[in-house]
Amino acid sequence: MKFQASIDIMPLPALLDPQGKAVSSNMKNIGLATIGNVRIGKHITLEVEAANQAEAEDQVRMACEKLLANQIMEQFEFRVEALEAVA
Amino acid sequence: MKFQASIDIMPLPALLDPQGKAVSSNMKNIGLATIGNVRIGKHITLEVEAANQAEAEDQVRMACEKLLANQIMEQFEFRVEALEAVA
Repeated sequence: MKFQASIDIMPLPALLDPQGKAVSSNMKNIGLATIGNVRIGKHITLEVEAANQAEAEDQVRMACEKLLANQIMEQFEFRVEALEAVA
Repeated sequence: MKFQASIDIMPLPALLDPQGKAVSSNMKNIGLATIGNVRIGKHITLEVEAANQAEAEDQVRMACEKLLANQIMEQFEFRVEALEAVA
């Protein structure tokens, strides 16, 4: 059974996010001074083949911990949805 | 009134995503051959000061179009939530 995972990886709240800071301070240059506190991270979508939802979530968690996120500096959250049901 | 926006910016489906391809092919090296079709984009959170939800959404859309997303290569979607109510 195929599942689609959608993962958000963001810099930890305690850490500075220089890229987000730069974007924040540029918002006023394009006439959007109402926007602030911008933080920029990664959004990842992937497909995983697994027997059930719990197994798919385990695979995605492992992928995040081993490869996708740097847990010293980033936190991740994800949701997993079934793409298609088997007959 | 303050709103929190959460934006996903992803490479257009028709375009190759070399970064995602590289991650896909590395999944099997860490024992996760069940994972494939990885696509990597940006996740952005920001705060916006606006009179109401519709106005906040307009500001966020403008920020995406003018600064955050490159619409030749990327598509964006976002959701806006009220952070706090005014008395």
